Amino acid sequence: MFRPLTLALLITATPVLAADRLTQAATLRDTALARSEAFPLLEDLTTRVGPRLAGTPAEQRGRDWAIAAMKAAGLVNIKTEPFPLPVWERGVESAEIVGSHPQKLAIAALGYSGATPPQGITAPIAYFASYQALQDAAPGSIAGKIAFIDHRMAVTQDGSSYGSNGAVRRSGPALAQSKGAVAVLIRSVGTDSHRNPHTGGTVAAPGVAAIPSAALSLPDAEQLARLVKLGPVSVKFISTPRFDPNGQSANVSGEIPGTSGEVIVIGGHLDSWDLGTGTIDDGAGMAITLTAAKTIKAARLKPRRTIRVVFWGAEEFGLWGGRAYAEAHKAENIVLAAESDFGADRVWRIASNVADTGLPLIAEIGTVLAPLGIAPASDNKSGGGPDVGPMRPNGVGILDLEQDGTRYFDLHHTPDDTLDKVDRAQLDQNVAAWTAAIWLAASDDRPLRTK
Amino acid sequence: MFRPLTLALLITATPVLAADRLTQAATLRDTALARSEAFPLLEDLTTRVGPRLAGTPAEQRGRDWAIAAMKAAGLVNIKTEPFPLPVWERGVESAEIVGSHPQKLAIAALGYSGATPPQGITAPIAYFASYQALQDAAPGSIAGKIAFIDHRMAVTQDGSSYGSNGAVRRSGPALAQSKGAVAVLIRSVGTDSHRNPHTGGTVAAPGVAAIPSAALSLPDAEQLARLVKLGPVSVKFISTPRFDPNGQSANVSGEIPGTSGEVIVIGGHLDSWDLGTGTIDDGAGMAITLTAAKTIKAARLKPRRTIRVVFWGAEEFGLWGGRAYAEAHKAENIVLAAESDFGADRVWRIASNVADTGLPLIAEIGTVLAPLGIAPASDNKSGGGPDVGPMRPNGVGILDLEQDGTRYFDLHHTPDDTLDKVDRAQLDQNVAAWTAAIWLAASDDRPLRTK
Repeated sequence: MFRPLTLALLITATPVLAADRLTQAATLRDTALARSEAFPLLEDLTTRVGPRLAGTPAEQRGRDWAIAAMKAAGLVNIKTEPFPLPVWERGVESAEIVGSHPQKLAIAALGYSGATPPQGITAPIAYFASYQALQDAAPGSIAGKIAFIDHRMAVTQDGSSYGSNGAVRRSGPALAQSKGAVAVLIRSVGTDSHRNPHTGGTVAAPGVAAIPSAALSLPDAEQLARLVKLGPVSVKFISTPRFDPNGQSANVSGEIPGTSGEVIVIGGHLDSWDLGTGTIDDGAGMAITLTAAKTIKAARLKPRRTIRVVFWGAEEFGLWGGRAYAEAHKAENIVLAAESDFGADRVWRIASNVADTGLPLIAEIGTVLAPLGIAPASDNKSGGGPDVGPMRPNGVGILDLEQDGTRYFDLHHTPDDTLDKVDRAQLDQNVAAWTAAIWLAASDDRPLRTK
Repeated sequence: MFRPLTLALLITATPVLAADRLTQAATLRDTALARSEAFPLLEDLTTRVGPRLAGTPAEQRGRDWAIAAMKAAGLVNIKTEPFPLPVWERGVESAEIVGSHPQKLAIAALGYSGATPPQGITAPIAYFASYQALQDAAPGSIAGKIAFIDHRMAVTQDGSSYGSNGAVRRSGPALAQSKGAVAVLIRSVGTDSHRNPHTGGTVAAPGVAAIPSAALSLPDAEQLARLVKLGPVSVKFISTPRFDPNGQSANVSGEIPGTSGEVIVIGGHLDSWDLGTGTIDDGAGMAITLTAAKTIKAARLKPRRTIRVVFWGAEEFGLWGGRAYAEAHKAENIVLAAESDFGADRVWRIASNVADTGLPLIAEIGTVLAPLGIAPASDNKSGGGPDVGPMRPNGVGILDLEQDGTRYFDLHHTPDDTLDKVDRAQLDQNVAAWTAAIWLAASDDRPLRTK
């Protein structure tokens, strides 16, 4: 009789306990939706500060803004943690077709790309319809030429196409360089059809100075491809970025302290590319997660686990902030980490990477988020957002509120990443989901760490 | 009995005659749809030549292309008619907010605008929410300031909002100058939400050198308006256009000769703005009207009235080609003129301005075009396309195949006026409409001239 009684007690107690937390979470969810507080925050950041290129005074202004915003949200223990960063800044840049079809091309230099002489370089185009075609090119076969990688990207809801397409941008320049190219133009890693190129980071081969590289807008890539079909094409390319190997960036964080010694890290990245105002990438993630924390704070709820909001620096140049953060905090009892860094469109699915003991929590989150049109966790192998990725090997549990990426790569890393692109209803849905999910996790005690 | 018999004969004869021409026109309409020949022509122009700024070597390359394309279409009597033109070309240009919210702004200098010193000018912004607000400003009240005219444009299917909004761009700079402004920034005359400013022509006050002026992209105008709300804003503005009062442009024309001595003029304008590739404005008009003529020629039909395709030069800077053409051809028996200059989207309605004797022809055109989803003539007061406007006071009849302008001002005068924006099915519908309409007019003998 003992067992059935215990079971009965558990059956009675657990739902009451769960209903309590679930009801709190549902109330927080609906409060967040009704308050609609993220948009004004995002507007303020992207208007007052605008673009926040890593390692520049603009990123510093972003940190000043973040500290003030965290204070206003009621967070405490606000900290800035600097880390070293090689800083790259765009210079003068232009590209034009020379010869019998002279035309300007809309380009944007890629992060960490090399410089041309101030007067530029003029060279014939070597055309590659795909990344594979470039991989197949013989070493030295494009010596003295400008490689044009015309690799196309598909639209995907879950952003999975960025996996392979991002590699074109990150590794394409170094690959072309290894085949003899003097410079590289890529078809923008994007899915729109506007004259706004998509910039982004590149990775140089170890010990080699990067060659100049830039992205063409999608219409320009198509124009250049058409011209290549008509006969040999030469391009004059100018790009004069500045590079400082000894710069600095920083992470900023603030907390709602808990009682258990366990920490949940949520946030977005503070830096942005220079072309837009860093609204969807990743002002939105900052506004969503800070508003979620603020909503919990304003409800006067005391979390068991500390809720820490982190705004990482220098994500765009290769997760510098995320890597520095994971290293600096590896001894800390961070049980769960979650980053919002996929725009401002709605959350459509949950994913996680937690210990089995944490799966009931993930299921609870699914239950409370379902009325927002969010599907339950599809798997427990999530890599998480970019800046929490480096914490995952340390055993930190991962929560991922996956956003709809259908139109994300229309705007990503372009001048068009601006406030007018934000759908307020979808932004609010994000905040509602984060508020409820984080409360459920912060009020819980089931183990989440994977080691 | 005589009268009834005559009436019976007329009733029998007229429908047969009409059915014959109408059947021919319907066949041409369907042939044009099936052949889908305009897009390759438009692709060729906008790829090989690209932008065609008036009075520049690029416009000359456009004329060379036009002559070859007219020959290939089977037109004869191909002519180039030069006319003088003050030539304006964009220089270096940039704008940035200075002070505590430093950010770059996406701008494009306006046609015939003045130049700043090479190092630019820095001045406070004087904000005007509308053109009316600027009109209401006291003379001298904005001395030393940069006027920012934040006038908004509505989306209209018939393009009617361009009437008042175009005036903001054309006359706003001179108006602001009369109130003491040292430079002018306008919210782009456009309806999109991309970081691509809409350039366009301006008109200086007589005998006064124009001040520098530029259009902000829509997102930049909104950003600047938000910053103005936060407090005083200063902008550093650089624009160094080149101006040559003694340049030249030209009109190009070719014909399918008729037998009656009467002439029908159709066409589009050859010049474009420099920012895009002049695809929807007005490569589309060139491709549509030339393909219509080619389709008639290819059908081996002999028109009663000469069908003349004219590609006007220097439309964008103030109808220089259209005015020169009207003057040079005022003694000619041009009975009807029609220009396609409103993009590549579908024709939705017919309009005209012809003698009453011509109204049955307009009705016939309505009948043959109805299966294309085109509404009959709404009135007989049409002004016609821009370049045929100057012929109208001379008594030339006007036909207007009105295109759907819902998305025209998303692209108009921007870098985004490129080939990828063209919907081939809608482009083909235009060609079908023009082919049928022009054949009906060219095979007819009812008077059309209004004097």
